[in-house]
Amino acid sequence: MVLPSAVLVREVGPRDGLQSLPEYIPAPQKVALINALAETGLRYIEAVSFVHPKRVPQMRDAEEVMAGVQKRPGVRYGAFVPNLTGLERAIKAGVDEAGVGLGASDTFNVKNVNRTAAERFAELQPFIARAREVGVAVDVGTVAMAFVCPFEGAIPPARVLEQARRLASLGIGTISLADTVGAATPRQVYEAFTLLRRELPDVRLGAHLHDTRGTGLANALAALEAGVTVFDSSIGGLGGCPFAPGASGNISTEDLVYMLEGMGIETGVDLDRLRGCGRLASEILGRELPSHVLKAGRLQQVQAMPAAAL
Amino acid sequence: MVLPSAVLVREVGPRDGLQSLPEYIPAPQKVALINALAETGLRYIEAVSFVHPKRVPQMRDAEEVMAGVQKRPGVRYGAFVPNLTGLERAIKAGVDEAGVGLGASDTFNVKNVNRTAAERFAELQPFIARAREVGVAVDVGTVAMAFVCPFEGAIPPARVLEQARRLASLGIGTISLADTVGAATPRQVYEAFTLLRRELPDVRLGAHLHDTRGTGLANALAALEAGVTVFDSSIGGLGGCPFAPGASGNISTEDLVYMLEGMGIETGVDLDRLRGCGRLASEILGRELPSHVLKAGRLQQVQAMPAAAL
Repeated sequence: MVLPSAVLVREVGPRDGLQSLPEYIPAPQKVALINALAETGLRYIEAVSFVHPKRVPQMRDAEEVMAGVQKRPGVRYGAFVPNLTGLERAIKAGVDEAGVGLGASDTFNVKNVNRTAAERFAELQPFIARAREVGVAVDVGTVAMAFVCPFEGAIPPARVLEQARRLASLGIGTISLADTVGAATPRQVYEAFTLLRRELPDVRLGAHLHDTRGTGLANALAALEAGVTVFDSSIGGLGGCPFAPGASGNISTEDLVYMLEGMGIETGVDLDRLRGCGRLASEILGRELPSHVLKAGRLQQVQAMPAAAL
Repeated sequence: MVLPSAVLVREVGPRDGLQSLPEYIPAPQKVALINALAETGLRYIEAVSFVHPKRVPQMRDAEEVMAGVQKRPGVRYGAFVPNLTGLERAIKAGVDEAGVGLGASDTFNVKNVNRTAAERFAELQPFIARAREVGVAVDVGTVAMAFVCPFEGAIPPARVLEQARRLASLGIGTISLADTVGAATPRQVYEAFTLLRRELPDVRLGAHLHDTRGTGLANALAALEAGVTVFDSSIGGLGGCPFAPGASGNISTEDLVYMLEGMGIETGVDLDRLRGCGRLASEILGRELPSHVLKAGRLQQVQAMPAAAL
């Protein structure tokens, strides 16, 4: 089992987690969570989204959140930015990094942003030029619905490669594949990343996984084995799946870091502090979150022995 | 990624799941669940435990449960059987298969059954002789706390091998390693099974995994890659961890089968019927269960598009 020695964990809970929940979380609570996350050793926190407020009302306070965050050196504060209008808002708000995406299936692209993949790609060129001009990083490009699409079913790896090539041709250094609906299984994940690694050897690979069907960390393991070194995750496992009400969201940052740490893979993140952030997120939402490590913690040496464990 | 083409899924929810819950489930409800599970294509259902009722009161009705079950041809009804007294009860109750175990750490063995591993092994010889005499199968021997022990910490693979050798020397064909406290991570799992596969090439390998820290299916993937073809799981993810109150139990049968099916690994189990059993278990307990696939289901082709998914 060959695994990387270190990975970058990108915390996306304040953005992808909170935008998928039914309720609106007020800006001061978002700010408190982001500030706490910045104390854990995380180097990237996706804080907000500059999607139109009508489409994602949960993120309507992006400017207020960015204004409230106490920027900590060594931490990049990112945003999901869908277009040039959003980019101008992001620039004014002082975002360090803009996340961009492209769907693997045209049906998804048309339904999500009313553009084909080719049209979306054409838009990305002036977007990236403008971001570079003002010093906003665009380091990660995500291929959404990279494994399974609710409109088109299983996505052929060759199609994913085509979109990844488009993103790489723009000078984006990390290409991330997203299991947007949390339906992928490990062999698919391994095969898609293995193809990208072979065909785009200079690109760094990332995975954006959802745990909707319980396969999140198994898919992360398959991705690690295929050479992926960048992982998106959400504190507490915050979030949901718009296609499956009540289902889990992104893989949990605590669970991911627990697994990586247990395998000797360096993350730079302090698991105990992360668990503190998970508790804070749980308090803010007033409910239990999906993260397992948040509830169970590390294994403690114990004295009491339960009956007949096996 | 080399994976087996078929695996045996052993349903242990009625035993390991229900024995770990705080409440007692009446025998008729246990029987209903076991009978429903027998309609899914599962070939092994661990129905009861013959541990002393004072130690595991949730299983005090083992005889009543076995008497109520409608045995379906092709399904084996198993029990966890700790000793000869339990074996006589199991024989009378008409159990097809007895599960036996041995802890990897002596501290665990002493605390769990008040015996060292060597003493426990000595007891197993007459136990297996008696079971064979009456035609009760002892096909699977489990090494408990095979990766991490709450008393002794990380377990060296060589120690696991020693216990596995003991079980194999009794003619037990499948040796299963249990992550009893759900603290293992995939590299450990892969390494322990790889050692066993090399040193005991004639033994079939099994994994008994708990999802206490979210690594359950990732550990299952690592086990598959190391050649494991037998997996224990619980319907709905029933169960808990006696060392971590409120934490998840065994890996969920629905999630395991979803992952295996998605990778083209044959299980013979009908996922839709399994989900029906998960709903029944959830109704019996009157609460949500940990299984993800139980909540999210398979991916449905959808028409409605949520805003700005990534």
